[in-house]
Amino acid sequence: MRFIELRSDTATEPTQAMRDAMYNARVGDDVYGDDPTMRELEEYAPKLVGKEAALFVPSGTFGNQLSLFTHCKRGSEVILGDDCHIVVHEVGAASVIAGVQLRTLRTNAGEMDPVEVRRTIRTEKNIHYPETGLICMENAYSNGRVLSLKNMSEIYNAAREYNIPVHLDGARVFNAASYLGVDAREITKYCDSVMFCLSKGLCAPVGSMLAGSRSFIEKARKCRKLMGGGLRQAGFLAAAGLVALKDMVGRLGEDRENAIFLGEELSKIPGIKVNMKDIQINMVFFDMSETGYDSAKLVEEFYKKGIKINPEEGGKMRFVTNYWVKKQDIPYIVNTFKEILRKNCN
Amino acid sequence: MRFIELRSDTATEPTQAMRDAMYNARVGDDVYGDDPTMRELEEYAPKLVGKEAALFVPSGTFGNQLSLFTHCKRGSEVILGDDCHIVVHEVGAASVIAGVQLRTLRTNAGEMDPVEVRRTIRTEKNIHYPETGLICMENAYSNGRVLSLKNMSEIYNAAREYNIPVHLDGARVFNAASYLGVDAREITKYCDSVMFCLSKGLCAPVGSMLAGSRSFIEKARKCRKLMGGGLRQAGFLAAAGLVALKDMVGRLGEDRENAIFLGEELSKIPGIKVNMKDIQINMVFFDMSETGYDSAKLVEEFYKKGIKINPEEGGKMRFVTNYWVKKQDIPYIVNTFKEILRKNCN
Amino acid sequence: MRFIELRSDTATEPTQAMRDAMYNARVGDDVYGDDPTMRELEEYAPKLVGKEAALFVPSGTFGNQLSLFTHCKRGSEVILGDDCHIVVHEVGAASVIAGVQLRTLRTNAGEMDPVEVRRTIRTEKNIHYPETGLICMENAYSNGRVLSLKNMSEIYNAAREYNIPVHLDGARVFNAASYLGVDAREITKYCDSVMFCLSKGLCAPVGSMLAGSRSFIEKARKCRKLMGGGLRQAGFLAAAGLVALKDMVGRLGEDRENAIFLGEELSKIPGIKVNMKDIQINMVFFDMSETGYDSAKLVEEFYKKGIKINPEEGGKMRFVTNYWVKKQDIPYIVNTFKEILRKNCN
Amino acid sequence: MRFIELRSDTATEPTQAMRDAMYNARVGDDVYGDDPTMRELEEYAPKLVGKEAALFVPSGTFGNQLSLFTHCKRGSEVILGDDCHIVVHEVGAASVIAGVQLRTLRTNAGEMDPVEVRRTIRTEKNIHYPETGLICMENAYSNGRVLSLKNMSEIYNAAREYNIPVHLDGARVFNAASYLGVDAREITKYCDSVMFCLSKGLCAPVGSMLAGSRSFIEKARKCRKLMGGGLRQAGFLAAAGLVALKDMVGRLGEDRENAIFLGEELSKIPGIKVNMKDIQINMVFFDMSETGYDSAKLVEEFYKKGIKINPEEGGKMRFVTNYWVKKQDIPYIVNTFKEILRKNCN
Repeated sequence: MRFIELRSDTATEPTQAMRDAMYNARVGDDVYGDDPTMRELEEYAPKLVGKEAALFVPSGTFGNQLSLFTHCKRGSEVILGDDCHIVVHEVGAASVIAGVQLRTLRTNAGEMDPVEVRRTIRTEKNIHYPETGLICMENAYSNGRVLSLKNMSEIYNAAREYNIPVHLDGARVFNAASYLGVDAREITKYCDSVMFCLSKGLCAPVGSMLAGSRSFIEKARKCRKLMGGGLRQAGFLAAAGLVALKDMVGRLGEDRENAIFLGEELSKIPGIKVNMKDIQINMVFFDMSETGYDSAKLVEEFYKKGIKINPEEGGKMRFVTNYWVKKQDIPYIVNTFKEILRKNCN
Repeated sequence: MRFIELRSDTATEPTQAMRDAMYNARVGDDVYGDDPTMRELEEYAPKLVGKEAALFVPSGTFGNQLSLFTHCKRGSEVILGDDCHIVVHEVGAASVIAGVQLRTLRTNAGEMDPVEVRRTIRTEKNIHYPETGLICMENAYSNGRVLSLKNMSEIYNAAREYNIPVHLDGARVFNAASYLGVDAREITKYCDSVMFCLSKGLCAPVGSMLAGSRSFIEKARKCRKLMGGGLRQAGFLAAAGLVALKDMVGRLGEDRENAIFLGEELSKIPGIKVNMKDIQINMVFFDMSETGYDSAKLVEEFYKKGIKINPEEGGKMRFVTNYWVKKQDIPYIVNTFKEILRKNCN
Repeated sequence: MRFIELRSDTATEPTQAMRDAMYNARVGDDVYGDDPTMRELEEYAPKLVGKEAALFVPSGTFGNQLSLFTHCKRGSEVILGDDCHIVVHEVGAASVIAGVQLRTLRTNAGEMDPVEVRRTIRTEKNIHYPETGLICMENAYSNGRVLSLKNMSEIYNAAREYNIPVHLDGARVFNAASYLGVDAREITKYCDSVMFCLSKGLCAPVGSMLAGSRSFIEKARKCRKLMGGGLRQAGFLAAAGLVALKDMVGRLGEDRENAIFLGEELSKIPGIKVNMKDIQINMVFFDMSETGYDSAKLVEEFYKKGIKINPEEGGKMRFVTNYWVKKQDIPYIVNTFKEILRKNCN
Repeated sequence: MRFIELRSDTATEPTQAMRDAMYNARVGDDVYGDDPTMRELEEYAPKLVGKEAALFVPSGTFGNQLSLFTHCKRGSEVILGDDCHIVVHEVGAASVIAGVQLRTLRTNAGEMDPVEVRRTIRTEKNIHYPETGLICMENAYSNGRVLSLKNMSEIYNAAREYNIPVHLDGARVFNAASYLGVDAREITKYCDSVMFCLSKGLCAPVGSMLAGSRSFIEKARKCRKLMGGGLRQAGFLAAAGLVALKDMVGRLGEDRENAIFLGEELSKIPGIKVNMKDIQINMVFFDMSETGYDSAKLVEEFYKKGIKINPEEGGKMRFVTNYWVKKQDIPYIVNTFKEILRKNCN
């Protein structure tokens, strides 16, 4: 049975072109620097984000944590949004691997206030103070919102002023670029390092890239070994990654359009509230509390109808569009939803 | 030359009674549990805060960090105010020693919003989530404000509901109790462990206590050894500490009265703004920006007149009263201030 | 140009059967537990080592460090051989990720002395002592030697007596089993957890397994997420891994035979000393110092002839046989060597 | 009741001169750098060991761990003897605070083999290798033995060659100097930093010094704050420390003579074996297993007679002489021992 997958774009299967590329991949031992396909990926990828060099990592979490570990002296401070992925969804790794102290700022839909960022930077020498070691932004944000270039540039400028590096969690940076209608480099010019995923909306099976200056990436390569991320014939994953970057980046607008269409249709269902303004990438967040229907039960009922969804997290439902969810699937999704609610009323 | 010390109550010298007690102290090797004076202190101190047991530590920072280290599994999360001492003034130690992830919440003059605390607690099992390991409050707060018992009880109840321990940074808990007009136990009943200082307003030369349940303190004793806090003939410090707890707790109201008097007099100086509502313990915060006078220069001029003050931190001046600042010193302080400003105008 | 690869079995390319399996693999999001091929691997693999459960990890280093992190309380002690992989070749990760203190014992060709292990275990309660958290063995050892079952059982029994878990770095455990002529379970019954590689001699492109009790693996699964090892459509790697475990384990004896043959032939070259007794798996260590030839130059000359080798490490040369080095390649290797040395003499 | 204290020189009470000095001490807030007595100590102490600067710390463990933390990048390696204090008696702190990987070498009565030290230093650049961050020696050694200057110089020279700093755990460095008949600077010239205790044989109640270059000590001062070692009116402890350094260093020979006398007398008791060669400082180690008497019971019996001793550790008894054990006490100690054994035989 083919399922319609709305839980997350992490669940995207690779395309046929990716399977073909993997099958035919030339590989070698990448710890020795011998994998030709990985070398190709590590040369191709940084150009897309305007950086000198890049490194393949097995996951987005790995890439973010590797970046923290490489940038920061242990015990230094990292300023970042209190609802970002690094804080909320990475198992507290920043305190284990990098050993840094988080300063979590409230965000406005993902955007930190540049004034508050400046106030939080440790500018004085004081025996009581750790150093500010890094500022992290995330674009697109976990909540589906896209940070404005203005907000990013203001924070980046504050960081530069005090010589503090900036890392961007760009797991979905190409979705963000698509929304903003700019090249990804227009976003990543406001950071010193960026992690972006080959999986998720781009459909590669495994892996992300960490990009930055050549010296940063060389340092990160050794730290990656320490963290157990030195892979051998990684060219198979690189082969799929190259397809992801070459063929899939350009079609992310389609996922956004489908998300908007899905959002509009869902908002017609009584009791369901969709904040249309929040649909900026491929995520539709909505509140179904007024329907009185239990979200865990909804998961089960949808599953029976061949649709995978997640239950509420923090009071909100989230449906995520992706390459495998076609426009024509959307009426089926919405009708299934209506029917489940209708049955329940009877 | 005798200086009037307004920089901090950390600079308080011990009383004559403390010198006498130290001179006559019976001591032994406290790592062996052989120091009779330390044993007396460790029996006396926990009663004041309604706990089963207590442990001497060389500083307030040591006590707070020991508490984090003892309570928390590495990698777990600690919820606390974003402007509290542990976050701002302890050199990032929480990420080094305990290895925990801080979740820093905005406070209202030191009080965290109990609703936000509840929202931040990790209640779901989720492979992406660290556990919430601890909630920290601070009373009196670094900003000189005292948390209400209502606020403390609401946060403590939230913590209990999810079985999360609560630590109180009570460096100045007796100042807070004096302001609230309650026994310190009325405050410390809303925490599982509390650190309070023998130095600062209580005038002991060195040391703080960490109090909690017997099993917690036994565990902390070993962690203290790891952190290098196993002292030998510590009874000298305990002797002064016992005087601090027996003789000095009761007189903290005087410091507050002097602070209020000092605040009132300062507010009469043109260009100086004192928020009288904020004078709850022994700290007078004021804004002197309208005088146009440089705070670093003020430090120098005051010093020439026998008064030690700190320059601005974060745009605010702070004068701290203590045992050695007598009521009759206050007119001299204020007049000196006026004269410095007057000279400057000419 | 096809190279003969003697640097390491880590450089083995996958077999055609693996490429086919990967191409046809059914995959899903493994963080959601949805990848059918990974599920198959995680059910199949632990049986080979007599454990309840297993977890895929991206590398051997990842698996070892994950095991330390999962078994050990931070600050506890790990007893292990001073020349084992975890100590020498894992970038100091044990002090970063698990945060444990290593007690490195001298080994006799990889075997620790059980008497010394017992002496090193912390049996007393003492405020100065950390706990012994883990004992690690490695079989086959990095030096190409195989630990005897007797040695393993003695150390394991000592550990059991004090209730200390034992981890086995079994990167090449199937090579060891082949040498000992036993099922791998005869080795792994002397440990509580074991890491073994799908890559290396088994030729899978990427990945290792960590196996142990069900509860240990569940805990490790969360720790793996923290370390960035939560992969998405990992079924591609699992597909190759299944071929590795099903088809390749049985043929490791061939690599050993080839290594012995290679060793014998090398030892006929004047100035080259091979310790034949040390050829127990697929590694031929030899000393070429008497030839007077520079090992770095040898690397270059061999490369020109289509053979990849490593330079000396710690005064020793190492040639490693593997699936892609056929018996008929060996005369060519040895003749090439002779010729390089001969040319040099002229 | 006055006890004769043989458990450890850590149990030494301060002298009357120390009590007097503490009583009269001029103090200030040492975090502000305002404590005149502490300033005096921190100027006086480094000269004794030929270093530029020094820092007071609350314990020997604190000083050693602070040194590791200040010298070493997290994850780097520290080479040291496998039975030294840092490894055996500091609760695993090196893996928690500094976060370093220990390489523990077997010692010959405390002396590491310089050849093995050289072999253990990481001289190659290799992606699998951590850096060697520090070499630690200990003199006098925990086992009561004194390292030769020859051994120290050989190890120091190896370290210099590779630009690796050397730390000396000199808890009893003045005892070692007394044995060697040299100025302490003849020992400490073979290290970059040294920790030595004011307590122990020198009788100060609390504290040790960490000495090194000015820049090292400035860095250590901030790390000390992080570790909770920023004390306030620490001048009381400094006052006793100054007496310790000025009055007590010269008399340590007496403790050694008493130890030798005690050793000789003990060795006359049937069944007791004293290795006289090992009595180099103030420690008498002996084996009493042939007496058949239980060491725990011996502790009790001695206690009744006014003598405090420790039970066996690792099969060995240890009696420690100090300022408070006078020559004339020794016959009483020995006779008490004889009588206990005699009673037992009846």
